[in-house]
Amino acid sequence: MAYFDAASAAPLHPVARQALQASLDEGWADPARLYREGRRARMLLDAAREAAAEAVGCRADELVFTSSGTRAVHTGVAGALAGRRRVGRHLIVSAVEHSSVLHAAEVHEADGGTTTQVAVGREGAVRAEAYAEALRPDTALACLQSANHEVGTVQPVAEVASVCRQAGVPLLVDAAQSLAWGPVEGDWSLLTASAHKWGGPSGVGLLVVRKGVRFAPQGPADERESGRAAGFENIPAIVAAAASLRAVRAEAAQEAVRLRELTQRIRARVPELLGDVEVVGDPRRRLPGIVTFSCLYVDGETLLHELDRAGFSVSSGSSCTSSTLTPSHVLKAMGVLSEGNVRVSLPLGAAEDDVDRFLQVLPGAVAAVREKLGAPVPSTVVREDALVVDAVGKLCPIPVIELAKVIGDVPVGGTVRVLADDEAARLDIPAWCAMRGQEYVGEEPAEKGTAYVVRRTL
Amino acid sequence: MAYFDAASAAPLHPVARQALQASLDEGWADPARLYREGRRARMLLDAAREAAAEAVGCRADELVFTSSGTRAVHTGVAGALAGRRRVGRHLIVSAVEHSSVLHAAEVHEADGGTTTQVAVGREGAVRAEAYAEALRPDTALACLQSANHEVGTVQPVAEVASVCRQAGVPLLVDAAQSLAWGPVEGDWSLLTASAHKWGGPSGVGLLVVRKGVRFAPQGPADERESGRAAGFENIPAIVAAAASLRAVRAEAAQEAVRLRELTQRIRARVPELLGDVEVVGDPRRRLPGIVTFSCLYVDGETLLHELDRAGFSVSSGSSCTSSTLTPSHVLKAMGVLSEGNVRVSLPLGAAEDDVDRFLQVLPGAVAAVREKLGAPVPSTVVREDALVVDAVGKLCPIPVIELAKVIGDVPVGGTVRVLADDEAARLDIPAWCAMRGQEYVGEEPAEKGTAYVVRRTL
Repeated sequence: MAYFDAASAAPLHPVARQALQASLDEGWADPARLYREGRRARMLLDAAREAAAEAVGCRADELVFTSSGTRAVHTGVAGALAGRRRVGRHLIVSAVEHSSVLHAAEVHEADGGTTTQVAVGREGAVRAEAYAEALRPDTALACLQSANHEVGTVQPVAEVASVCRQAGVPLLVDAAQSLAWGPVEGDWSLLTASAHKWGGPSGVGLLVVRKGVRFAPQGPADERESGRAAGFENIPAIVAAAASLRAVRAEAAQEAVRLRELTQRIRARVPELLGDVEVVGDPRRRLPGIVTFSCLYVDGETLLHELDRAGFSVSSGSSCTSSTLTPSHVLKAMGVLSEGNVRVSLPLGAAEDDVDRFLQVLPGAVAAVREKLGAPVPSTVVREDALVVDAVGKLCPIPVIELAKVIGDVPVGGTVRVLADDEAARLDIPAWCAMRGQEYVGEEPAEKGTAYVVRRTL
Repeated sequence: MAYFDAASAAPLHPVARQALQASLDEGWADPARLYREGRRARMLLDAAREAAAEAVGCRADELVFTSSGTRAVHTGVAGALAGRRRVGRHLIVSAVEHSSVLHAAEVHEADGGTTTQVAVGREGAVRAEAYAEALRPDTALACLQSANHEVGTVQPVAEVASVCRQAGVPLLVDAAQSLAWGPVEGDWSLLTASAHKWGGPSGVGLLVVRKGVRFAPQGPADERESGRAAGFENIPAIVAAAASLRAVRAEAAQEAVRLRELTQRIRARVPELLGDVEVVGDPRRRLPGIVTFSCLYVDGETLLHELDRAGFSVSSGSSCTSSTLTPSHVLKAMGVLSEGNVRVSLPLGAAEDDVDRFLQVLPGAVAAVREKLGAPVPSTVVREDALVVDAVGKLCPIPVIELAKVIGDVPVGGTVRVLADDEAARLDIPAWCAMRGQEYVGEEPAEKGTAYVVRRTL
């Protein structure tokens, strides 16, 4: 059994466990109290703040502990927007931010603000020039992740921070995925992170607001954590979070090389082993432990079940069959294949043997899913002037499977129209065309759903 | 050494520690994931929710875990107000609520809503009739604590809930101080609580919203915890919180009797031992473990230091010398003496010997503070037509000490004017008069600060 979903949550680091247990005895009291138990708690909290600030590369009085990374993002975005409300109400985010940032942006829009989403390239990275173009005189805040949580692509934070700094706009960096590996470079203004991504306990986030950044905390007043994180401080967890951040940093350089080699092995082997697969994310500027690929003719969730049965815990940005019925916004923004998506994110200390075993198991698992899906209820093929595949009512990856089945019947130069109403088809049919060298002509409204037109070129 | 501030935070219950350690191994993964680690985490979370719901007396799907009691209150108040926004924007709270409720009310007012504060009697309790009078056609929500955190007075929640129910207004009960002792009675609509008050770890609160109560969560969307508590669930802490709630409930009935006897001993002995002391809070309808008293001519913070040096950790609602320079809003609302205030809140298992030793140490500690303060810089006594004591610029308890020093110089039937600009004097001079049988005539504006007029009657 191997857990390969560290980007979601990492198991507790041994140092975190040790620190947690020690501080359960010393850190349960109210650090605002003057008696000995309170003073001990305050000392632990202060020491944890110093340690975390050192790891981030900021002053201790710029850093507060929140109850989660999500909460840090929500508080950071709302406070920075409110602090610069006089300047304007324009917010910039990248199209591939974590949902916590996008949800904060939604609230901002519902409240009358405006948001610009900066597009990413096919490898998932933004360009600093795109941020420069998005900046306006009324821009109150820009947000950019340090690295993407789904595909591992590292963002040009220092360049974007410099562009923002020139415009006098603060940049909030969501460093959830990268803080374990090192401080965020560049002249950013706010930073958020989440301890359970680096082997700390759940229930601890970080919010850093640089001195001089205008910040107006929203919501009910609370004296704790400089008024930026309401509620009683969870000191044992905070102590454990700081201790584990320091511990993972001590091994980061060495472990990064090792994990990078393992994810590179997956990147290289997966296309050879599976066929009809697209490895996504930037091949060079990427996090050491994350590798993501998408498999044609595969339903991501079924594949996760197959892999779970084989003892591997991975996640998927392809949620075609989940309740929401929408593919990952990240894969969508990148314009890459979303069907049969698998994210492997290796925890610190991931065993080489487990990775090799994963590569042994994977082809069988993918083949099993493809076999299961290979005989769906046949779609009606209506021959008109062009071939029509009716996949209305069918969920991803069925429309693509149907397309693949009939493309051989289309004369070279001829077209086929795929009727589909599953949102994922809009992404996956062009992606299939790109992968198979066929021409994607475009989409047009159809009586039922949307018609995606493909021309056979070979 | 004895810790007598359980109303602020209780040390971790042994059962909580055990549950926390066990679930650190099983509960760190994302409960929304489908692989085995995620399923295990989900099972732990579901079981904890069932256990907590049983202790509260609600359905499991009515209860979510938040990151603190404060957060539960903020979310509960905001969500309930938004859910009934069409009805109106009037909020009712008692004058002695926890600061988290009052701060939520402040935000509501800043946002254009209105709030009615229901007054309390001298023993700290509201009357159900007062809530009935405060209810208006546009009342969206009423809030009432189950018991007061500073003086231990138990509130008539069932009666107030019934009054609110008749008016169709939901009642939110802040049960932070009482949930360890038993479920909250009556037909309430929302309930909040905090695990570290019952020996659970920090970082866990409860928010219960009864089915049928209109509730619209505010802030950025998040799928976790029914959309009512953003951020990754802290499952080990949640498991520990639920386990310790169950454990303290099992011993509650027996322990309540024991602690009630100990606090009764303090209530009875303190006036005999100290003199010039007022024991506050309801003598009968009160929590088992809390007893609060105020000492004339004593500065609360100095007394806490004396007691801390003697090995006792207690807290004070009298913050005359703290940064805020205002006496506790609770003592103020009750109209009782606030100077030299001490709250003793016994943790479960508090040793009888420690309580007796506290009663031995207390008289010496109070005497030491009174001695220190007995020789302040003499105030200028200006004889005009009436005696004037100029205590402008002097902080509590100096104005009262100066008053006590000169009252003997006033002829019976004559008056003395105390000039003071410390806010606490407004509360403490009338309280001193009531305790010493002198007549408090009233206050009037003076050239410097306020003049408090006292007539010597004996």
